[in-house]
Amino acid sequence: MNTILEQSFSVPFRYPVAFTENLFDPQNQILANVLRGERVPKVLFVIDSGVADTHPHLITEVKNYALAHADVFTLAAEPMIAIGGEACKNEESEYQKIVEATHLYGIDRHSYIAAIGGGAVLDMVGFAAAISHRGIRLIRIPTTVLSQNDSAVGVKNSVNAFGKKNYLGTFVPPVAVLNDFNFLKTLDDRDWRAGISEAIKVALIKDLSFFEWLENAGEALARREMEPMKVHIIRSAKMHMDHIAGEDPFEFGSSRPLDFGHWAAHKLEKLSDFRIRHGEAVAIGIALDSAYSYLQGRITESDFNRIIQLMHTLGFELFAPELQGENLIQGLKEFQEHLGGQLTIMLLEKLGNGVEVHEMDHDLIFKSVEILRRLEKKSAVHAS
Amino acid sequence: MNTILEQSFSVPFRYPVAFTENLFDPQNQILANVLRGERVPKVLFVIDSGVADTHPHLITEVKNYALAHADVFTLAAEPMIAIGGEACKNEESEYQKIVEATHLYGIDRHSYIAAIGGGAVLDMVGFAAAISHRGIRLIRIPTTVLSQNDSAVGVKNSVNAFGKKNYLGTFVPPVAVLNDFNFLKTLDDRDWRAGISEAIKVALIKDLSFFEWLENAGEALARREMEPMKVHIIRSAKMHMDHIAGEDPFEFGSSRPLDFGHWAAHKLEKLSDFRIRHGEAVAIGIALDSAYSYLQGRITESDFNRIIQLMHTLGFELFAPELQGENLIQGLKEFQEHLGGQLTIMLLEKLGNGVEVHEMDHDLIFKSVEILRRLEKKSAVHAS
Repeated sequence: MNTILEQSFSVPFRYPVAFTENLFDPQNQILANVLRGERVPKVLFVIDSGVADTHPHLITEVKNYALAHADVFTLAAEPMIAIGGEACKNEESEYQKIVEATHLYGIDRHSYIAAIGGGAVLDMVGFAAAISHRGIRLIRIPTTVLSQNDSAVGVKNSVNAFGKKNYLGTFVPPVAVLNDFNFLKTLDDRDWRAGISEAIKVALIKDLSFFEWLENAGEALARREMEPMKVHIIRSAKMHMDHIAGEDPFEFGSSRPLDFGHWAAHKLEKLSDFRIRHGEAVAIGIALDSAYSYLQGRITESDFNRIIQLMHTLGFELFAPELQGENLIQGLKEFQEHLGGQLTIMLLEKLGNGVEVHEMDHDLIFKSVEILRRLEKKSAVHAS
Repeated sequence: MNTILEQSFSVPFRYPVAFTENLFDPQNQILANVLRGERVPKVLFVIDSGVADTHPHLITEVKNYALAHADVFTLAAEPMIAIGGEACKNEESEYQKIVEATHLYGIDRHSYIAAIGGGAVLDMVGFAAAISHRGIRLIRIPTTVLSQNDSAVGVKNSVNAFGKKNYLGTFVPPVAVLNDFNFLKTLDDRDWRAGISEAIKVALIKDLSFFEWLENAGEALARREMEPMKVHIIRSAKMHMDHIAGEDPFEFGSSRPLDFGHWAAHKLEKLSDFRIRHGEAVAIGIALDSAYSYLQGRITESDFNRIIQLMHTLGFELFAPELQGENLIQGLKEFQEHLGGQLTIMLLEKLGNGVEVHEMDHDLIFKSVEILRRLEKKSAVHAS
């Protein structure tokens, strides 16, 4: 005689995603409002080394903010510095340092870790927070276009292992995402530009009107105007949030994150030893899969040209020597493995509409690469 | 101008908790039913060394089951062995070995890890599964009374770190919990008995009729009769399931797991270097907090005596040399730290009804210890 009981419950998650300036101005209540509660919690700040270098007063500002709001929270310790960029996800010692700090400073489940930095640092600190005490409350303070308009609103965290990106990680939402636009002003041109590719991605597969808005704003964005940058970030972040909330937040089923252009991008990043940054690789990946969609007759030549034109206006390079057919076929295989079994690739059905397919024609991939190679030569001739 | 978006979603979890015998008899469909799907997934088995020793044919049985159901799933590799007992949670290399195996054998998010063993092994393997690929599907196959009637139905996993129990871990539910009663037949008397304390715990704070049932079944349980053992396991597991589903499964707020008697138990385990097993320590912890509840006038002397009588019928020792006032006060402090701030202790209001309090009188704790010491002397005299 067997007995089978069914366990069933839902876990609700709720967190604010705020967009502001001067987050650490003592007058700015956003962070204090997140931390205010029955207790006066400890907060451990972890700062991306790149951000700390570019913002030498940031640590002092954080300390002054804590002093001004001493009735709301206290600093658990001196703010810690984490190596900026992908390196912090490759070095085991980086996340272990944060885990150890939670032990040393008595950071419990009702305390907070606030991570200030780019996507890689947020991923790594998020992982350390998620596994310590079965989950310390995480506040993400993203400082790049890419993390503000896309990754920081998500529910994932991770570090790399066995040479594989994001091999270790969990699905654990943050308790707040606080975006300070001022951090964007000090980004170099490459990082300012790179993150915009994630907005183009989501516009192309979900929202024609947003794509048209980006076309109109392209030159102003290329000139580093702040207003269109802010508008595009909020709109892109919102679309990523809606996707997560609407589908399958923890990706139990076959539902996919918004990863148009990403299968090739992952491979290009690795092949170039991360010389090509994530957002730059995504731009190339989008161009490649747009070319493929065009060759399959899914989108028109004029649609394809609009995509390439926007990328060029923003200053993206759409070809890299690593972009070779055989490498890409290998990348496709790795992507399939990562998905676990069935291949699922997002292509374009028309501008603003993505469509999932479950196979890709290798010959058409080679031809798509050729298109990007020819476009590069043309634009090189044009530039000379 | 600040913009604040609110992200909000719920994540549904659903999994069967099955009770059976001869789980690996090829005729038994329960495991195959869990694994059956569009794909033929890989399954990595990890077996508690204690269970493998007591059941020398288990690995062969698992392999034969896989052969018989080759259309449903395949073995990812030879079943692995994990050190049984708390040691597997103390040795970092134990969980890392599982994580590495997921890499070596290509275990992805749509594959499964099936852990066969006691609570410690299930905790450790669950942690490895939870962080690999951001979560590999976990099937728990608990083999002890304690894990079948309590811990395996839960949503937590963990390993120890920095000398602290469960320092690293996550809240990630399994995809199935499959209980095979046959594993209980080979438990030694101490483990057969120890787990029953978790059922007494939940009965005392939630359900008088279950406590009365345990009183009636006490002698049969002490004689190792299987029928009352099965009944009590299903009833206790169900109560633990309902508690998790009904309150705050991931313990975001101040809600507590069912941990009557546990604050002292945690300390006793550690003080005795785990000579006192978890369930045995819980029995002592329950006796202690029942004495305290009696001294506070919450329950009557006759209620208190019924609790002690049931414990004695089952063969529990209710005193240990480590049970000293000063040690306990220290344990109380550590428990408060673990909770993060406010102390919350469950006491008895009456039989079948728990009540939470936020402070404990040290003097009354000392007096409660004295009661247990006197009871031990009396039963020692009685036994001689």
